[in-house]
Amino acid sequence: MPISQDQQDEIDALRARPQPTLRAVSEGMEAHLYRANPVLDHGFVRVVDYMGDDAAIVQAARVSYGAGTRHSRDDEGLIRYLMRHWHSTPFEMCEIKLHVKLPVFVARQWIRHRTANVNEYSARYSILDREFYIPAPEHLAAQSTVNNQGRGAVLEGDEAARVLEILKSDSTRAYDHYEAMLNQDGQQGLARELARMNLPANIYTQWYWKVDLHNLFHFLRLRADAHAQYEIRVYAETICRIVADWVPAAWRAFEDYRLGGATLSAKALEAVRRMLAGEEVSQENSGMSKGEWREFARVLGRDES
Amino acid sequence: MPISQDQQDEIDALRARPQPTLRAVSEGMEAHLYRANPVLDHGFVRVVDYMGDDAAIVQAARVSYGAGTRHSRDDEGLIRYLMRHWHSTPFEMCEIKLHVKLPVFVARQWIRHRTANVNEYSARYSILDREFYIPAPEHLAAQSTVNNQGRGAVLEGDEAARVLEILKSDSTRAYDHYEAMLNQDGQQGLARELARMNLPANIYTQWYWKVDLHNLFHFLRLRADAHAQYEIRVYAETICRIVADWVPAAWRAFEDYRLGGATLSAKALEAVRRMLAGEEVSQENSGMSKGEWREFARVLGRDES
Amino acid sequence: MPISQDQQDEIDALRARPQPTLRAVSEGMEAHLYRANPVLDHGFVRVVDYMGDDAAIVQAARVSYGAGTRHSRDDEGLIRYLMRHWHSTPFEMCEIKLHVKLPVFVARQWIRHRTANVNEYSARYSILDREFYIPAPEHLAAQSTVNNQGRGAVLEGDEAARVLEILKSDSTRAYDHYEAMLNQDGQQGLARELARMNLPANIYTQWYWKVDLHNLFHFLRLRADAHAQYEIRVYAETICRIVADWVPAAWRAFEDYRLGGATLSAKALEAVRRMLAGEEVSQENSGMSKGEWREFARVLGRDES
Amino acid sequence: MPISQDQQDEIDALRARPQPTLRAVSEGMEAHLYRANPVLDHGFVRVVDYMGDDAAIVQAARVSYGAGTRHSRDDEGLIRYLMRHWHSTPFEMCEIKLHVKLPVFVARQWIRHRTANVNEYSARYSILDREFYIPAPEHLAAQSTVNNQGRGAVLEGDEAARVLEILKSDSTRAYDHYEAMLNQDGQQGLARELARMNLPANIYTQWYWKVDLHNLFHFLRLRADAHAQYEIRVYAETICRIVADWVPAAWRAFEDYRLGGATLSAKALEAVRRMLAGEEVSQENSGMSKGEWREFARVLGRDES
Repeated sequence: MPISQDQQDEIDALRARPQPTLRAVSEGMEAHLYRANPVLDHGFVRVVDYMGDDAAIVQAARVSYGAGTRHSRDDEGLIRYLMRHWHSTPFEMCEIKLHVKLPVFVARQWIRHRTANVNEYSARYSILDREFYIPAPEHLAAQSTVNNQGRGAVLEGDEAARVLEILKSDSTRAYDHYEAMLNQDGQQGLARELARMNLPANIYTQWYWKVDLHNLFHFLRLRADAHAQYEIRVYAETICRIVADWVPAAWRAFEDYRLGGATLSAKALEAVRRMLAGEEVSQENSGMSKGEWREFARVLGRDES
Repeated sequence: MPISQDQQDEIDALRARPQPTLRAVSEGMEAHLYRANPVLDHGFVRVVDYMGDDAAIVQAARVSYGAGTRHSRDDEGLIRYLMRHWHSTPFEMCEIKLHVKLPVFVARQWIRHRTANVNEYSARYSILDREFYIPAPEHLAAQSTVNNQGRGAVLEGDEAARVLEILKSDSTRAYDHYEAMLNQDGQQGLARELARMNLPANIYTQWYWKVDLHNLFHFLRLRADAHAQYEIRVYAETICRIVADWVPAAWRAFEDYRLGGATLSAKALEAVRRMLAGEEVSQENSGMSKGEWREFARVLGRDES
Repeated sequence: MPISQDQQDEIDALRARPQPTLRAVSEGMEAHLYRANPVLDHGFVRVVDYMGDDAAIVQAARVSYGAGTRHSRDDEGLIRYLMRHWHSTPFEMCEIKLHVKLPVFVARQWIRHRTANVNEYSARYSILDREFYIPAPEHLAAQSTVNNQGRGAVLEGDEAARVLEILKSDSTRAYDHYEAMLNQDGQQGLARELARMNLPANIYTQWYWKVDLHNLFHFLRLRADAHAQYEIRVYAETICRIVADWVPAAWRAFEDYRLGGATLSAKALEAVRRMLAGEEVSQENSGMSKGEWREFARVLGRDES
Repeated sequence: MPISQDQQDEIDALRARPQPTLRAVSEGMEAHLYRANPVLDHGFVRVVDYMGDDAAIVQAARVSYGAGTRHSRDDEGLIRYLMRHWHSTPFEMCEIKLHVKLPVFVARQWIRHRTANVNEYSARYSILDREFYIPAPEHLAAQSTVNNQGRGAVLEGDEAARVLEILKSDSTRAYDHYEAMLNQDGQQGLARELARMNLPANIYTQWYWKVDLHNLFHFLRLRADAHAQYEIRVYAETICRIVADWVPAAWRAFEDYRLGGATLSAKALEAVRRMLAGEEVSQENSGMSKGEWREFARVLGRDES
């Protein structure tokens, strides 16, 4: 369980005291506040704070005094228009702050999204907990044979057992040694900023991560994608569900235009036009490379692989 | 008056409906919400939303589950430590959203602070109001004779009158012509995106501006400074008062370490050390240029000008 | 003519002294360096410096020691792959620095792109030149009747003449008054930081603008678009030609995937699939709004307006 | 040795072919280009490209046509003025691109500086090399007893030997297992994106890192500071030497105003003024906390610890 009893008590205490506010309130987010959504074996995502709602997007787009329009249907139409035409600034007017517990190798991918604010638990200042990500058997996969940066079939039999045994025993040993080096009984005790270097990338860390809705959508488009590594994708999917409760209209627009949509190149658009005109278009006469054509076929629902 | 009766009604409506929230609430900010603080002759600053409070800074610095420490004195000590040692990320965990009405030439300075989110009233889409900044007589100043980018003595007599007359009549004529060009009665009517080019830089615009507390402090340090142009400084000073009500402990740390503090160069520190050792230090034997020495003397409260 | 003889002499001097360098050199850019490409009636775009070329994109993507691959065809394939899959970081490894002269109302749109470095000519410190943008007759257009933020038919006859007369006489008068207020003969002379507020938005300003290739492509996609205001679009189109000479392979990928491409929503993709399956799809049974359907038809080359 | 013979050959090839350019050239940087400056046991810093020189800072500050002033002494004065008054934008007009090889735990600190461009070697796509940071005996230090995030005395005797033995054997075993899990002989072979999680934080990674001079100075001020962790400080110090060769005037200003300077709070300035007036000031009557007073004394060269 990722949350200790003490931590759960603190969360319960925070949820027990609603206070009046004049700010925009999202009912969907109030239900989420502070609660830990479990991810992987020891991780979680918790909403710590948020700013704005669907109406705040509309209000900013109109630079208005009041709060959105009277008719939520008009609001949704405007939000869809903004999303369709890449008017990103109104979406930047909503903000979310998350507390995330995640393996270090996931944190290293995540931090590449620079337009966010981060406070990470410091392993120079504090001692990390003994918690490591060990994949569930169904997520232990072989190197993909078609994609240089992906995974393929699930590992089977002895090999799977050997891998799990290695991951477990190496992280146990690394953490035992970490503690032994830090230990100050009868010895000086190695500095924490040095001892941490012995810990493998599947150890868990934690951070506060704050980001505006536009940049969050960008993160989700890349990380909730089927090509993202499974271990970061499950975090992105958890955040997707939170966003759907927070700003439902913006979420629906995002789902339609970004998650479910696709960008076609000039060559691909030309191919579609020719196809609709009844022409037989093949990779050879499309001007596309084999890789492009394969991706294009997939977008059209004609998986040729 | 910068706010019309309709706008005031919208503000009153928003302030009339407190709702329960589980988020951190700053009492000081709730009192500010939506209200217009007048600035210059037609401008204002209104708080539209905020995220976090002093405890949120502490909570993020500790990556903790609860909300700050039990003792607010400890919180203040930590906040001072963070400010002193340039640990900026915990301050980024607070966010504020303002609605600002301001002259275009002030907006042009303001927008140079890039780490913020902005939605400006669009003069391509809408028609601007007939509102221009005309300086009060006591702010109508001559070019400084010592500072190439500053102002000096207040203008006197006929000259002041002539300048005010020019500013008023030119903006009136420019706006009359703006309307005449837009007019569609008996003519096509010029596109708004073109007609706006006739308007001078003292016309008022409006925007939503959202920024985190760290970047806001940076803005305030530069723009609430005595060397900032008066017309942007009064906006910064208004925001300073809002921040003091929002995050009182962070504000006090900022006031002590940034607004009231000064950065001394290696040469200046060496001069201080020599002075404290009883040595007579002059510009000539300090290694500083005349300009540096003058600024150094001012920091020490020895204005030699 | 936007460039004075003195300025031309400085440009010629800079172009006269090639120096040896070990850095990546783009022949196409060397031909551009320092030269002023005229835009609008008094504006220009000049390349002042650049970093990197097509091979630098490949080199960074591979984190390699050498410079790109041996076969430029492989480089182009990789660049297309990076563009198609939104791998933006290798494109950020190229940088360009431009000197731009542009009307203030164009500068106000341009500056909204925040991920760039800017040094603007200071009207607090210096006196602006008497140069104003006056549209050519063929660019003097009426407000669009279909697009709230666009322009429609060209103005005709007397109306066009009246508008030109207003723009010319108002800017002349504003500048005469600007000079009169600054004047220190027999009077104190108004501070430059105040006098500038009388100047209209069609006055020219100048800045140095530095940006990486990824963010430049984002700027060009939005500003070289048919929906961008003409006066900023001509700057974007000028920069497009420069980029095509600088990084030809990256430019071709950008042209195919971004400028010439289109993003289809989930609903639009579904409509395409149904059409290709022989179904008759109309706005009514597509799930799209009228606005979306119109844009969708245009993407398919079936303009139904 | 951090560079293989093949890599050295590539570097030599790049250095062998100077080409003419019309851009600003910094002689000091040309001497550095592509060469690897060794850092720690297997790391390095190499300059891959640069844009601008001291004159480019001046040119941008003046938004001028030519290149700096005729007198380099005037240039230096202006550069000092810009640094002293926090005019950061002209420094942003210079850019540097580095290729860095560094341990993962150093990379994790480094990446927190967000205003830079990064391309890291991908452990999803490629297999990491067997290279780990093992501290030299003189850098193997105990946890500091006064600073929660620092190190104290050097470890001695058996303890030092035990720690080194742990670091070496754990990284050897982790890498052996990494290879064993990846191995496809007689088994499927674990996906690279999963196998990497077994590797400890002292393994080396590589990246291309591109940053402007203003943000680089910010990085150097924090990371070349005595309180920075030794392992990142040595990288910062290596970059300091490179910058001193690249933009000597800007470097001297940075050294005087930032590296060698200090920021005094309002309370500290008040204490200095009282001291200079002959008053006896102590921690108790200064209004400062004990921690602040200790830091203040150190700035005045009166270390009281």
